[in-house]
Parts: sequence; structure tokens; C-alpha cells
Amino acid sequence: MNYRAVVNILGKIMFIEGALMTLPLIVALIYGETNTYMAFTIPILALLGVGLLFGFKSPKNKLLRAKEGFVICGLAWILMSLFGCIPFVISGMIPNYLDAFFETVSGFTTTGSTIMTKIEGNPFGLLFWRSFTHWIGGMGVITFLMAVVPQGDGQSMHLMRAEVPGPKAGKIVSKMTDTVRILYIIYFVLTALEIVFLMFSGIGFYHSVVTSFATAGTGGFSVKDASIAGYHNAYVEYVVATFMLLFGVNFSLYFFMILRKFKSVIKDEELWVYLGIIAVSIAVIMLNLMYTTDTTGEKAFRDSYFTVTAIVSTTGFVTADFEQWSILLKTIIVTLMFVGGMAGSTGGGIKVSRVMLYFKQMISDIKQMLNPRQVMGVRVNKKSVDSSVLKGINTYLVIYVFIIIFSTVIISIEGESLVTNFTAVVSCFNNIGPGMESIGATENFAHLGVLTKIILCFDMLAGRLEIFPMMILLVPSTWKRH
Amino acid sequence: MNYRAVVNILGKIMFIEGALMTLPLIVALIYGETNTYMAFTIPILALLGVGLLFGFKSPKNKLLRAKEGFVICGLAWILMSLFGCIPFVISGMIPNYLDAFFETVSGFTTTGSTIMTKIEGNPFGLLFWRSFTHWIGGMGVITFLMAVVPQGDGQSMHLMRAEVPGPKAGKIVSKMTDTVRILYIIYFVLTALEIVFLMFSGIGFYHSVVTSFATAGTGGFSVKDASIAGYHNAYVEYVVATFMLLFGVNFSLYFFMILRKFKSVIKDEELWVYLGIIAVSIAVIMLNLMYTTDTTGEKAFRDSYFTVTAIVSTTGFVTADFEQWSILLKTIIVTLMFVGGMAGSTGGGIKVSRVMLYFKQMISDIKQMLNPRQVMGVRVNKKSVDSSVLKGINTYLVIYVFIIIFSTVIISIEGESLVTNFTAVVSCFNNIGPGMESIGATENFAHLGVLTKIILCFDMLAGRLEIFPMMILLVPSTWKRH
Repeated sequence: MNYRAVVNILGKIMFIEGALMTLPLIVALIYGETNTYMAFTIPILALLGVGLLFGFKSPKNKLLRAKEGFVICGLAWILMSLFGCIPFVISGMIPNYLDAFFETVSGFTTTGSTIMTKIEGNPFGLLFWRSFTHWIGGMGVITFLMAVVPQGDGQSMHLMRAEVPGPKAGKIVSKMTDTVRILYIIYFVLTALEIVFLMFSGIGFYHSVVTSFATAGTGGFSVKDASIAGYHNAYVEYVVATFMLLFGVNFSLYFFMILRKFKSVIKDEELWVYLGIIAVSIAVIMLNLMYTTDTTGEKAFRDSYFTVTAIVSTTGFVTADFEQWSILLKTIIVTLMFVGGMAGSTGGGIKVSRVMLYFKQMISDIKQMLNPRQVMGVRVNKKSVDSSVLKGINTYLVIYVFIIIFSTVIISIEGESLVTNFTAVVSCFNNIGPGMESIGATENFAHLGVLTKIILCFDMLAGRLEIFPMMILLVPSTWKRH
Repeated sequence: MNYRAVVNILGKIMFIEGALMTLPLIVALIYGETNTYMAFTIPILALLGVGLLFGFKSPKNKLLRAKEGFVICGLAWILMSLFGCIPFVISGMIPNYLDAFFETVSGFTTTGSTIMTKIEGNPFGLLFWRSFTHWIGGMGVITFLMAVVPQGDGQSMHLMRAEVPGPKAGKIVSKMTDTVRILYIIYFVLTALEIVFLMFSGIGFYHSVVTSFATAGTGGFSVKDASIAGYHNAYVEYVVATFMLLFGVNFSLYFFMILRKFKSVIKDEELWVYLGIIAVSIAVIMLNLMYTTDTTGEKAFRDSYFTVTAIVSTTGFVTADFEQWSILLKTIIVTLMFVGGMAGSTGGGIKVSRVMLYFKQMISDIKQMLNPRQVMGVRVNKKSVDSSVLKGINTYLVIYVFIIIFSTVIISIEGESLVTNFTAVVSCFNNIGPGMESIGATENFAHLGVLTKIILCFDMLAGRLEIFPMMILLVPSTWKRH
């Protein structure tokens, strides 16, 4: 382990976090929330101090291998949350440190599960920071670091691989630094577009911005107690639902569109599977709602459109209390929780590309059994998929299942029900937000036990970072000098 | 597809089923249950007739490939159940054909989920047949066919592979026919031993025999309404629990013991993992029961010993109503439902050997990520595991997860609760028996809908035959002439 290089990059990331935290301080200044100034100033000074101390003296040996990439990534996200929750604690908005940590992990990992029982009425600056963590976490702060402080291409690749979701992290242009810059520009423009669209609704600039942050990162924190339902505004619901769908799309496709490579977009199989899953789910839910409840056409469509995009994109905003829906719809919602967005989007979950590969692999393996001599392969976008990618997604599934089972067993020590425990783990691990029963659409995570919250924090981080960076921190041999 | 060879072997299997069904007819004769004679005689004549018609004229082309092996296996089990349920329907014990079919599939697949609301008071012959299906299904009727009618070694291998559970079916002696004969002898002796031990309890010969049949096949049908709890006899509970544990062990190990190769037994990793899982589960459940309920020492040990062996061996007998236990224990029980017995035992589930391989593979992959240049492998019993076996278990997991999700979504159309639907699928697919909530330890499957019962029949068969024989029946290209 190259400790000096690890500490150096972690220092830089702390410095960036300190710099980013000045934004909510400015919001607090604008709204004249004098009693929250210190809540921001103290962690900002601490972060900048740590950053200056460790982040600016370049180490002699800059070599980063895969191992260092994963370790930096895992530690960075934990440190960011440990520091990022300080404003909530000092201000007294969330006096309990573990609760504040949970809320911040939920923010950065773009999960959106909240322990806050009452959101409206809290200071604007603090709620801004809460929503802003979603925006930071959506693309990732290491990615941000690479965009502003160019690293060697080999180094970047290891860091990028650790933080960017999907079965394989690729460059879309030849240089890594350019790739992440392009991705951040697309992210920025899409967020700005949503803000503009939301401004037309009349909910005001502040609400438009924080809602867009939470949508862009596919997070789900709202500044309304009743989530997006609290705006009582169908236009807002349609805008947010549409942007949830857009942020669940692979960002490379937007880049292709800028380059006018429309064929590459139209021929992208994952896109069609993603849209197909959404369309079918909306149709089934809408028809079932019209059939089993007295919800009429437009409202049934809106509720199903919003709920499906909220779950599939792993945002977790809420407009309808799906706890009241039929068992079929609840089962579909829990199933959709596993799917997630497209690879290369800000969405969490298993990712559509993996689900698609699992399915294709299954078909291919059954055919192989029928014709043992024929050579079968899995093809996506007419290109054959490398066997190492297939091995990777299979390993991923094994660890994924293990973590869900292990977490569910551990948190069941503290009681609650089978459904609450299972959906809490599934929702947190896939970075969605709400679960079922006592953590359902209109509920929160405040009442859960200490052990449960710690396990769920681990699950949220493991989910956002696609497991390995968190798992590797637990392996003793990671910490050897060489 | 070599249709003639397929039909020929299916004919032979029908003949064997007809012959086996004379046994319950004899029981009915002994007890003088005159009104059930026809219920057995009609299907016996039909089966023997079909058998004589199709099973005895050898086809010119005897070639069986992997494809034919799977198809024969899948069809054989469906046909056996379609015929096997006739006595229940004709006698009026289970007048509804679908319910009778469900009960028979549950019997042959050694699941033990029952749709009968009242078991005591029914004719002895019919209940004998119900328990006997477990014994037949435990080792498999195709395996039986190979033991009595020797086939070419190549042919047998394809059939054996389709029916025998575990990540790889192996011979324990050089000839396949000898292998299955040895396995059947061990099966027979162990069953006889259990009967002898149970006879000492004073529950009588009939009860000893049917209980031993259900234990041997790791099935779980009881002739008591309250399952094994109905005997109110601690000795019976200990004997049954111990034999459930023994029937969950790989039968090859018993063969090694006969050959006095004790080292091979002691050094078998899967055995230690199997015993370890059981020991840890018993300890946790026993302590939790003593701590959270007023159950005292011996009773707490007995209830946990019995429940753990019943679930891990996938038998599903019941002595304690675990529906009343704490959420932690319920979660542990649901988790254990996935594990199952050892490969090469009569137990269902994922099998301990697969769980062990998943775990070892996970560790190896994490190490590989840390040291990309080092060549890692997975080793069991100090031998390196072939990559094709690892590929096989990964594919298995993918299809396994797909079937559970798909089944749960489909049956949720007919209502019930999330937990009922999920545990119904998990319990049937892993061939256990009881689930949770409305299909819990003291409940039954009678109230479920038609669609649910059909899906669960598929799941039970897919679980017992380890998925492929059932999946392949659904692939159109299977049915091509070549």
C-alpha cells in the first residue's frame, strides 16, 4: 500500500469538500440564518486545514495500483460523510451524530433515506447542503477531482474504475481528464435545464434548485415533508419524473447526441431495455391502479410514471403512497428496486446493463446445454462480450446476494418486521430511499436501531461504490505496506 | 431430438410407477379399505398398460445426448405426478385434480407442502402412497430405473446428470449402474434403520414406516395434522431430527465409511461446513429462545435442533411454531431455507457445496482485485476447482434468482402478502415445505389461488431437478427433430 499517495489524494478530496461547503454557507448568509454560520464555518476550516496539511505536498512515489484506487475511494466516501454531517450536528438540526452521519451517507450515496421526521421549517442553508450532497455524490467527488486536477491517465483509470458504476468503466474520449470533464458538463447542463423547467411551475428558485440537485444525483431528499407530493403540482411531478428518467440514462449517449452520432444512440440495446422496463411497468401499474382503486386516467398515469421512474432511476422521490397499492404492485416495485438505472448514469441498483447480460447469459447457457458442441457467446450491440466481463458480473451477483442476506439477518436482531428489514436493506443497498411498511413511502428511518443504521450506512456506501471499495477495506492484507 | 428413445424410457418409468403403486394397494388391502381399491387399481392398470405399450419395444437408435437426458427427466417427473395423483382424486380424499396434482408434485419433489387441511382420519393406504412418493422422489425414479435396468454407461451419465442434485454428478465406482445400486442400498439401509429406531418409541409400525419415508426423501409429509409435534414424544423428535441430519449428508461419504476410508470423510470440507452451519444455527436459536421466551434448556435445544435440521435438510417437518419466534430467528430460518443439504444427499436447496464455492470464489475474486497479477484459484478438499464448475454455479445462481423473482411477481397477482408469496416460492423452490404467515408452520397451502398453485408446482419441479430439465422444456428449439 502506497500510504503517502493515498493520504495525499484524500487530503485533496477533503479540501474540495471544504470548498464545496462554502456554497451552503453563502445560502445561509443570503437568508440571514445567523445561528447556522458557525455550523458551516467550523467544518469548512477543518476540511481546508486537513486539505492543506496533507493534500498539497506531492509524494515522491505517485504510483497508484488497483488496490490504492479502491482504498482511496472507500476511505474518501467515509471521510466525506464523517465531515459532511458536522453542520447538521453543530446546528442542532440533527443533534445525534450517528443520525447525522446516516443522513449524510444517504445524501452522498444518493440514497435519499432520511431519519428526519420534520423537514419543513429547518434552515435553508442546512437543507441546501443536504440536497447538495446528492448532487456531489451523483457524479462522485473523485471524478470531480480528476476533472479539476488532472492526474496521470493510468492513475485516473484506477480511481475512476473504483467510483464509476457499471460493469466496465470506459473512456468516451481518449483522455480520462477530458472524459470526466465532458461528463461533468453534461451533468451541469441537465441540472440547469431542470432548474429552468421547474422555475416555470412557480415553486421558486430555491425549491427548483434543491429539487434539481436531488433529481440529478438520483438521490431523493426533498425539502418538503411529503416529498414531491408536497408541491401539489402536476407540472412539477411531470418535470421531475422526466428528469429522473433522463438522469438514469448512460451519459455517454448524451455525448453521442452532441456529436450527432444518433445511430449509436438508437442502436444502444441497454437504452431500449431500460425504456422497455419503464414502459411495461408503467402500463401494468396504471391499469392495475385504474382497476383496483378509484384513481382515474391522468392521475393513474402520473402516479405510475412518477413512481416507476423514481424507483428505476433509484431516486426515490414520492408522490403516491404505494404502501396502499395492491400486493402485485408492491411486488413489482420491490423487483424494480433491484434493476436500477443504466450503467454510466447517476442511478444505482444492479444496472440495466448487468440485468441484460444476466438474461443473455442465461439464454446462451441453456442453448449451450442443448448443443454442447456449439460455441456460444453473449453479444451486446452486435459486439461479443468478453468472458472477463461475464465473470465480473457473476462475482458481483454472488457478493450482492451475500450482502443482502447478511445485512438482513444482522438488522433483524433489532426487531422490526421481515418486510421492513428486507426492504430497508434492498432500498439502501440499491441507493433508492423508501422501503415498505414502517420505512414506507410516507415514513422515515428515524426509529431504527443503532446497529441497523450502521449496517445500512455500510450498505449505502457498498451500493454506491459497487461493493469492492468497501469490501477491500475489510480485508486485512489490504493494509500491508507492500 | 430422438423421440423414440425418449418415449421408450418414459414408458419404462411409467411401468415402474405402476409397479410401485401396488405397495399402497397392499396396505389398503391389509387395512381392508375396500372403498379405495379402485382408486389404486385404475391408475396401476393405466401405468402398466402405457408401460407395456411404449417401454418394451427397444428403439433402433438408442442414442441419448444431454438434450434427451434433460427432456426425459423433466417429462418423467411431470408424468409421474399426473398419474400419481389419480388415487387421491378417485378416492375423493383430494377431489380437485389440481390440488391432488400439487400434493403429488410436492410429494415426488420431496417438498412436503400440503393442501390438505385435515390429514388424520384418511385411509391408511392413501396416506401411505402420499408418504411413499417422498421416498421414491428422494433418490429419483430414473436413478431407480438405472439400478434395475442397466443402460449404457454414456446414456446413464446424461440421465443421471439431469436428475441427481449438486454442482457435479460423479460416479463413486467405475460403473454407473453399480454407483446407483450402491446409493440405493445405502438409502434403503438408512431408511430401515430409522424405522427400527422409531419402533422403540411405541408409535407403531405404520407410523414408523411413513415417517421414515418422509425423512429419507427429506420430504416432510406427516400423517399427523400437527406434523411430528402430533406424537408428543421427545424421543421421536430426536430420532427424526438426527435422521434428517443424516439424510442431508452426501451419500458418497457413507460409501467411504463402508470402505473404511475414514480419512476421506473427515477431510471432506463440505461436511464440516454443513455441520458448522447446523451447529451455529442451533446455538443461536437455542440461546435466543431461552432469552426471549420461557422455553427452558432441553426443550429449547430440542426445538432448535429439530427446526434447524428440518430446514437445512429441506425436510420441513414441524415440532415448534416458528411463526411465534422473534424476527431474528424467522430471518435465520428464511436464510437457512436457501442453503439446503449437501450435494449428493436427498436434500434440496442451493446445496452446501455451492454455497461454499460461492464464498470461496468471492474471497478469491477480492484477493484477485488486490493483486491483479497473481493467479488465484478456488480449492476444495485441496483440489483446484475447474473453471467450468464455477461457471456452472454462477449460471445456476442467475437462473435461481430469476425464477424466484419471476414466480413471486406472478403469484402476487392473486394477492396474499409479500412475505407469504416470497416464502411460498422460496420454500417450494428449495423443496422445504412450510413458509411464513398464511403458509406458516401450522398452516397449509389449500387457500392459495389456481395460478399460484401452478407456478409453485413448476418451482417445486425446477427446484428438485435443479432447474435445467424444466427450463429446457420451455425452449422451442428443444422440440426440433434434430
